Parts: sequence; C-alpha cells; structure tokens
Amino acid sequence: MARVVVGMLGLGTVGTGVVRLLNDHKAVTLKRVAVRDLRKERTLVPRCAITDKAEDVVEDPEIEVLIEVMGGEHPALELIVKALESRKHVVTANKEVLAKHGPDLFKLAREKEVAIFFEASVAGGIPLISTIQKGLEANQIESVRGILNGTTNFILSDMEQQGETFNQALAKAQKLGFAEADPTSDVEGFDVAYKVSILSALAYGNFVKPDDIYRRGITHVDAADLKHAREFGYRIKLIGRAERTNGGVAARVEPCLVPLDHPLASVSGSMNGIVVTGHAVGELTLVGPGAGELPTASAVVGDVINLASALKLQDFASYFHGEIGVDWQSVVSADQWISPYYIRLEVEDHPGVIGRIGSIFGANQVSIQSIIQRGVAEQGASIVILTQPVAAGQVDKAMEMMKSEDFLVKVGTCLAIFEGRNGS
Amino acid sequence: MARVVVGMLGLGTVGTGVVRLLNDHKAVTLKRVAVRDLRKERTLVPRCAITDKAEDVVEDPEIEVLIEVMGGEHPALELIVKALESRKHVVTANKEVLAKHGPDLFKLAREKEVAIFFEASVAGGIPLISTIQKGLEANQIESVRGILNGTTNFILSDMEQQGETFNQALAKAQKLGFAEADPTSDVEGFDVAYKVSILSALAYGNFVKPDDIYRRGITHVDAADLKHAREFGYRIKLIGRAERTNGGVAARVEPCLVPLDHPLASVSGSMNGIVVTGHAVGELTLVGPGAGELPTASAVVGDVINLASALKLQDFASYFHGEIGVDWQSVVSADQWISPYYIRLEVEDHPGVIGRIGSIFGANQVSIQSIIQRGVAEQGASIVILTQPVAAGQVDKAMEMMKSEDFLVKVGTCLAIFEGRNGS
Repeated sequence: MARVVVGMLGLGTVGTGVVRLLNDHKAVTLKRVAVRDLRKERTLVPRCAITDKAEDVVEDPEIEVLIEVMGGEHPALELIVKALESRKHVVTANKEVLAKHGPDLFKLAREKEVAIFFEASVAGGIPLISTIQKGLEANQIESVRGILNGTTNFILSDMEQQGETFNQALAKAQKLGFAEADPTSDVEGFDVAYKVSILSALAYGNFVKPDDIYRRGITHVDAADLKHAREFGYRIKLIGRAERTNGGVAARVEPCLVPLDHPLASVSGSMNGIVVTGHAVGELTLVGPGAGELPTASAVVGDVINLASALKLQDFASYFHGEIGVDWQSVVSADQWISPYYIRLEVEDHPGVIGRIGSIFGANQVSIQSIIQRGVAEQGASIVILTQPVAAGQVDKAMEMMKSEDFLVKVGTCLAIFEGRNGS
Repeated sequence: MARVVVGMLGLGTVGTGVVRLLNDHKAVTLKRVAVRDLRKERTLVPRCAITDKAEDVVEDPEIEVLIEVMGGEHPALELIVKALESRKHVVTANKEVLAKHGPDLFKLAREKEVAIFFEASVAGGIPLISTIQKGLEANQIESVRGILNGTTNFILSDMEQQGETFNQALAKAQKLGFAEADPTSDVEGFDVAYKVSILSALAYGNFVKPDDIYRRGITHVDAADLKHAREFGYRIKLIGRAERTNGGVAARVEPCLVPLDHPLASVSGSMNGIVVTGHAVGELTLVGPGAGELPTASAVVGDVINLASALKLQDFASYFHGEIGVDWQSVVSADQWISPYYIRLEVEDHPGVIGRIGSIFGANQVSIQSIIQRGVAEQGASIVILTQPVAAGQVDKAMEMMKSEDFLVKVGTCLAIFEGRNGS
C-alpha cells in the first residue's frame, strides 16, 4: 500500500476509534488532529500533534487526506470546503453536511480533482458503498431501504419486548447512553432523512434535499400498535428508503410494519439493517452495528486505505468520479406513494360501525385486506384495518372523511406495511 | 467504462442469465459461447457465435476475458488453464475447480499477469468478495461463517416447518427442482466445503484443501432435534466456516444450532446468509439469494464490469494481485475445535441415568450447561444436553465412553452450537 499522510478533525468516539485502528497501519501516518477542547481527558492520546485550531490541520500542505469526524453542520462544512479547495481528499462520516450540501461539495471535489469518501456516514460499520458501487455493479438498483438509526430501533425493540410506552423506553435509552439528552434528531427522523439523502446519491446518482424527504418519527407509535402488529405477523421499525417508482424516485422516513419472516424484522436493539434490491440480484440484506467507536472507525479507516491504494493509480480521478452527481435528486410527491397500510381507529362500539368504515374506504378507492375489532372496553373499541396497496393520498382522504363521523373517537395510527420482494 | 470482448463456456441457468444481463451492457461484447449440446432447446439464444468446441472460445485471440460457467472439475480446469496461459482474464463461478486447484491457478495467473475473479463461486448474488476486500479493508477478519447451500437450507426449513423427515423433505426438494437427482454433493456438505475453501482464501489468503475440511452433512439430522432445538431457542442450519482460532485457521462444515435471535436463524428456504466478523466492525450479516439465474449472473457480470474498469488502469496487475496466495492454508485439527454442543442421547428410562451421564461428561472435562429429559415413551427417553464450550475431541471421548453403558440405546445427535458475537 502507498504511504499517505492524513489529518483529522474531531477526537470523540469515532475519532478515538480511528486513532486506535490507524495505530495498526504503518502505511497511514496520522500527522495532526484538531479537537474542540485541549484540556478534555481522553482514553487514548494519539501519537501526533494535537491542536484546537482546525485550520492548522486543514492548511497543512503535507496532509493529503482530511478525515472529518467532528460532526454537525458548522464549522465542519467550511473546513471540508477549505480542504477540498486546497486539493485534499476528504473522508467524512458527516451525514448532515453531505445531505445538505452534497452536490456543491462533489462539484468542488470534481473541479479540484480530489475525492470524497463517506462510507461511515450511513449505517456505521456496514459496508454499503462498496456493496452498491462494486458488488452490485451489474444491477439497476430498485430500492435501498432499512433500519438506519440505532436509537429509535432500540426504543421500538424495548417498547415491544417490555410493553413500555414511548416515553418510558426513551428515558431508558437516555439512561443507557443510546439516546441524546435532546433526542429530536433521532426520534423525529431527521437523522434517518440525512441518510436517505445519501442512499439516493449512491443508488440514483444525486442527493435528495432533506426538506424534500417525507418524514415521520416514532413519537406517535403506541404500544397497542406494536401488539396488534405482532398479532398480524409484523414488527414495527423506523424505515428510511430511497426507491425507484413508476413516477420517479421516492424518499421517505416513517415507521413501517415489517413482516416477521423478513430479515429486517430480526434487526433488534441498536443494530442497523439495510435491504438493497437490484433488478438482477433481488433482495440483499446487510445487518451490522450502525454506530459505535470501532464499527464506525472501521468504515472511516477502510475509506482511508482504499483511497491510499487508489491514489497510486495514474488515472485516479477518472476512476473515482462520475458515480455521484452534482444536482439535487427530484422526488415524487408523498401522496403518490403506493403501499399497503395498517390503520388503527378508536371508535364507539355500536352496530354498523364496521360497515360505515368500509364504505368510507371504498368511496376513496382504498381496498381492505382485513378489518378486525380488538379490545372492546368501556371507552369503545379498536378497529384494526390492513389495506391493499394504495396511494398514500387516498388513505389521507379516507382519514379526513372518517374524522367527521360521530362514531370516531380518534384516528389511532396509520402506518405503511413494508413489502419484501423475495417471498415475504 | 472501457470496452471489453468476452467469451463464455457454458449456457445453462447461470450462462443464460449472463447473456440476459450483458444484453444491457453495450460496453461488454460477448463474442462466442461454447455449449455441450448445440441442439438443446434454449429460452434465450445469444446474439453471438455458438459452438460446441470450447477451444474455439479459449483460443480466440480477440477474447480478453473468459467467463466460465460450465461447472464441474473437468474439462473446466483444463480450459481455465488454457485461457490463463494465453493471458486471458478469467471470471468463474466454479467453486470445485477453485477449491481443488486454487493455488495453482492463482500462481499461473500471477505469472501471466492476468486476474481471476470469482464472486459468483460463493453465495451466488451476495457480494462477499467486494465486502471483504474493499468494505472491510480496515479489519482483521476473525471468521466467515454461514449458510452457503440453498438445497440443504430448504430441506432443514421444510423439516422444521412441516415436521417432515429428511427423506420426505429431500423428495419434495427434488420435485420442486431445489435438489438434484443425486443430492450427495449438497446433503453431504461437499458443496459447502468447496465454498469454505474459497472463504479461507478471501479471509486468510490461502485456499484450504477440501480433504482437510472437517465435513458433516445433514442426512443424520432428525426431526426430533429440530423440535428440541426450537424449545431451547435455536434453529438447526448447515454452517460452513473459516475461522481464526488460537491454534490456527479452522475450516468446518456441519449442522449447528443457531440462536433464534441471530440474523442467520431467519435465513429460510433457498436463501444464503453469511456472517463476517472483523476485529473492528464486529459482526456483519449478509443475506440474499445464493443461487438462481439472475442472482448468480449478477455476480458474474459484476466481476466482468469491475474487471473491465480495472483493465484500463496502468498498474492493473499490481493493483489486483497479492490478495490471494499460492499455497494451501493449513488448518487446525478437528478435535481441537472448541464450541458449546447440543447432544441428544436415547436411553432406557431408569433411575440414576442422568447422574451416570453427568459423571461420564465430567470425567472427560465436558461441563454441562443444562440436561433435560424429554419424551418418555415405551422405548425409553431422550436426554438432551447443552454443554459449555469444550474441545470437540473431549465430546468424542465422552460419547465413546457412553457407548459402553448398558442404559444407552443410542447416541442420537451431537451438534455444535453457533455463537454470535454481538450479544446473541
């Protein structure tokens, strides 16, 4: 392997893992690391210069590759731009910067004839980029879908296994260090949306603007829904997806019912799982740790090593460019999205309700696959409906019409059902 | 992508898929295909020369890349050798030729400065080679383990779900076209052993001689064991593995109990699943179709495209050689293999039997984790034992000693228990 001199921004969990792994790779010389706070106590002190001035790393002319693992939009964006401008290659784990500024960054990289590698920005240690770009080279990618956030997967697994409410499971995740004090980015699906934008770039060439991604978090998932889903043979997972449909590319983040016999259903706790569907290969599922010190560092250092091997190729630039485009990916409107749905309605328990519900769905072209009454209690009953595949907009219209009915106590939940291709 | 002229040996299931996929790739020109029987009716006739003289393909000087999808050891071996000698690159799906002759072939390829690509030889469409060689570049591979044969996985799934005997499930698999008329290579584990040899080459640099691989098939797996395993929280799968142990590399094929909460347990029917464990990334599981026309062709054509891109690199040879060695991988002796075990004994039901069994295990340094009596019947009882991790040789000794006991009707089954690394 060619020798390469690298610098790094950030020495948190991932950065520490990178130092640990690079200690074993004599051909990669880590020259400088920039940190926010020089006085912070550290479990591992790198054997190189440490500075609190990020510019010292970005402006060092000897550094060929910049590793950015500081996270957050600013000042990471400005530092990456500066590195690219001075013709350094960049290896980044920063999903937010890529999702919000990917096209500009890749345009700049192309102008400067340098590369941006970003395996660690999606699904931590799971090698997704090598899989799509090399392993599935013969395929047109139909969809990339999966469980891309360990925090929400831990919460949903815990709610299902312990019968806890969302708030109870969130508190537990925070106590165990699986959720941040402010969990918004995870539980509202922003983190997954950034990753969906990157998946779109990998599968279809262009990033999707995060604001263009249909996004629903898990805060409204009720323990009752986990129980009903289980009875019907499903488990609820927060699914992010970039998917080619008849109308164009769809980009979505939402809790879905996943069939128990699909490999994604057994992705529990803080693991990640991704299903890549190619026109030739069919469904390929990858399951592994989506975060953590060494798994994420494994992706960062893998990028550095692959980059170092590639740097010695004469026509390096032409070999690596052209995979990622410099425009935003347009997406189909969310209400055109077609899926079977799971719907729970809370109703007053009197005769004729099921008939009325059926009529309202019918009037909106929603075909029902099954409709079952559950848990009659003082307050009424839960009606659980599974639909045939239908446009999301039609379901919304039916729900709107439902709200004006006397019998309705409330629309409980409305969740898409995940469809596997290979049999499940 | 660079233009490349290819020839192909074989036009069976996989070959037909290759023709189909190459039709979409204008940059790859399929010039000649050799078949065994020119008169055979075909669903897809390639738009190129078809011959029943394989030499016409191998000797065509314009052909740069030879695709070998004819299968079997001879004459595939001789034709591959001839192609390498005339400096053609080879893309092959032939696990048997690689496992039996890998070192010689890679030595010849290195001398001639050409490459052998073989993604399709293991686990069909699952892109394992790009994952290990590129995606997990920063990792030392601790083990590669998995379900590598769809026929036996179908049979075991069917036995478990339908409560059938091995023979009933085999007959069904044959009827459905999932098993050959002579199923020996699949059910006795030869097919998996070839793949284990290749996994060893990928993970540790050298092929293992198929005869050096510890191998047991599934013909002795009893429906009762599937049921007991389920009660203890396991499912029985035929597992092939290449694994680094304290003593060296272990290479094994055998039915194992896989914990139900491990992603491999949900790999059902004719699917394949592989767990790669790296020192940094932890466990990564890949699940997908291990056979079939388009999935396997996806791997073959992916190799052709990646090869074509790489061919335009100036230092192509140095970029691709050195990954696979030219010596045989030595392996540790099978009786030093350490694993927890599941053991079923058929015994006469009288007092003191469990105590006596415990003593025999103890005398052979086998620690018992649990011992349970099941299904008392006229003929006696089944005793099911789960052990702590122990050397296989000690278990063999205990079983040998058990055979001289009056109470023993027979040693039912003795199966290793699969241990996951990430929690399960």
